[in-house]
Amino acid sequence: MIDRDDIQAAAARIEGYVRVTPVMALKRGAFGIDAPITLKLELHQVTGSFKPRGAFNRVLSAPEVPEAGLITASGGNHGQAVAYVGRRLGHRAEIFVPESSPPLKAERMRRHGATVNVTGTFYDDSYALMLKKAAETGALLVHAYDQPETVMGQGTLGMELASQAPDLDTVLVAVGGGGVIAGVAAWYRGDAKVVSVEPEAIPTLAAALDAGEPVDVEVSGYAADSLGARRVGDIAFEIAREFVQESVLVKDDAIRDAQSALWDSLRIMAEPGGAAAMAAIVSGAYRPSPGERVGVLVCGGNTTELPDPPGTVMP
Amino acid sequence: MIDRDDIQAAAARIEGYVRVTPVMALKRGAFGIDAPITLKLELHQVTGSFKPRGAFNRVLSAPEVPEAGLITASGGNHGQAVAYVGRRLGHRAEIFVPESSPPLKAERMRRHGATVNVTGTFYDDSYALMLKKAAETGALLVHAYDQPETVMGQGTLGMELASQAPDLDTVLVAVGGGGVIAGVAAWYRGDAKVVSVEPEAIPTLAAALDAGEPVDVEVSGYAADSLGARRVGDIAFEIAREFVQESVLVKDDAIRDAQSALWDSLRIMAEPGGAAAMAAIVSGAYRPSPGERVGVLVCGGNTTELPDPPGTVMP
Repeated sequence: MIDRDDIQAAAARIEGYVRVTPVMALKRGAFGIDAPITLKLELHQVTGSFKPRGAFNRVLSAPEVPEAGLITASGGNHGQAVAYVGRRLGHRAEIFVPESSPPLKAERMRRHGATVNVTGTFYDDSYALMLKKAAETGALLVHAYDQPETVMGQGTLGMELASQAPDLDTVLVAVGGGGVIAGVAAWYRGDAKVVSVEPEAIPTLAAALDAGEPVDVEVSGYAADSLGARRVGDIAFEIAREFVQESVLVKDDAIRDAQSALWDSLRIMAEPGGAAAMAAIVSGAYRPSPGERVGVLVCGGNTTELPDPPGTVMP
Repeated sequence: MIDRDDIQAAAARIEGYVRVTPVMALKRGAFGIDAPITLKLELHQVTGSFKPRGAFNRVLSAPEVPEAGLITASGGNHGQAVAYVGRRLGHRAEIFVPESSPPLKAERMRRHGATVNVTGTFYDDSYALMLKKAAETGALLVHAYDQPETVMGQGTLGMELASQAPDLDTVLVAVGGGGVIAGVAAWYRGDAKVVSVEPEAIPTLAAALDAGEPVDVEVSGYAADSLGARRVGDIAFEIAREFVQESVLVKDDAIRDAQSALWDSLRIMAEPGGAAAMAAIVSGAYRPSPGERVGVLVCGGNTTELPDPPGTVMP
């Protein structure tokens, strides 16, 4: 299992390629919650999500990168990260993107010089097509979540948050394939309660925890472009079973409300998956105890749709 | 003249009403600049700009607030702040807004319960109409920039930045009426070089420094809604003459480019005035020495227009 030494080594490896993203502390009472909330603004990371942490660590850990370069499948954020890594490190990058991904994401991959194949409905369809191509070309597969180096890289987000906000009781993290929650939970190891947040429409981790093993779920709904894996990764499942203490689900409307709240009150423009953890707070799906110090990961900002104004003025 | 004690007193007065906003350090080399840049993300402040710092300090410093409440004229950001202050402190608020202000800003004032009069072309026209109304009602005038309490409140931004990034050599601040640069410069008092940044179209401070006194300028251009005062405030001029070491001007296109760069590289959505200081960096209007530690104030995010993608991929 991944431990803190692995994550510290990853942090040293990727330093200079990724940013330290800011945190923002909100006072008890903000958003009507009787607990102080610390937002981790990872949407300000290069490429607009946490994904470059894992992608850089995977590629920089590889003994060598073949002439064919890097290859991956991605709902969009990981693909942007791999395209960026390719450009920064001088490797070709080929990305398989499902048709459900916003065109903006593929466009940004292209701007980084990647070859982009928009094919398949959701992530898993693109993934299957990518595997065939990888077998032909011999390119280095940079998995979106289920490789140890990826999870170690995402774990640097937990390490960084723990140093910026050392007294958190609880950390809320959205789950797609589970890479970032696995990394964060592998860092905290119970020192803070790690809570998974998933759309009701795509409960990959909740279903796996219920079943005792990763199982397929239907993929649909508002956040499917960034949280649209069909099953949680094996690595994530093993770590989550031990170090994710609570699992909550949120409705798509709660995600929209969280986007509106972040935009209206904070001028933070999160994509649906990036607002999912906040949705657990604003909807009450996760109710902090009075005074509980809660960290909320705002993990992505790759959208072009301005949220609607909320129904009421937010504090 | 305003000193650090005044600013510290203001900080104590407004604490709990405004947020500590985050800073974000970019490595030397970001945006092609051979100097490390620290962004002060004041657009995440309540109401989306720095304005509540000064507005709260003004109102909380008043011996009493009349039944008629608060009154002001504003290009939009200060008006939102006064509307917010009114709601938080339980006072009526009446705001005069020029027709050049984006409808979004007036709408947000109304959502805070303020009475909004959209009248006059630019800020100064609205200001003249507001003065007449203030004489009738006896409401407390909360000036957008030219009252000592306002400048002291904006000075808390300098105090906060100095504590978050204690080793800055230089701080770049956009100027409209000059309230925030005056507050920031009154805090730094030469400990860091404070550089004013103004649109070429509205050079209120540059013109005043040239003339040796505040003078009227034409108001026009892309950033007129937030930087559209006709002349710099008297308080700001006195402080700037002593503690603003350099004055630079930027073209409207540079402001657009800076908005695009902030959005594309950082998922920060700044309004034109909020991106003006950054425009001095990306356009080369201000060229840091190699290694110079530069703070850039991103002072507002009240826009609904997504920036265009930049012409090239930004680092």
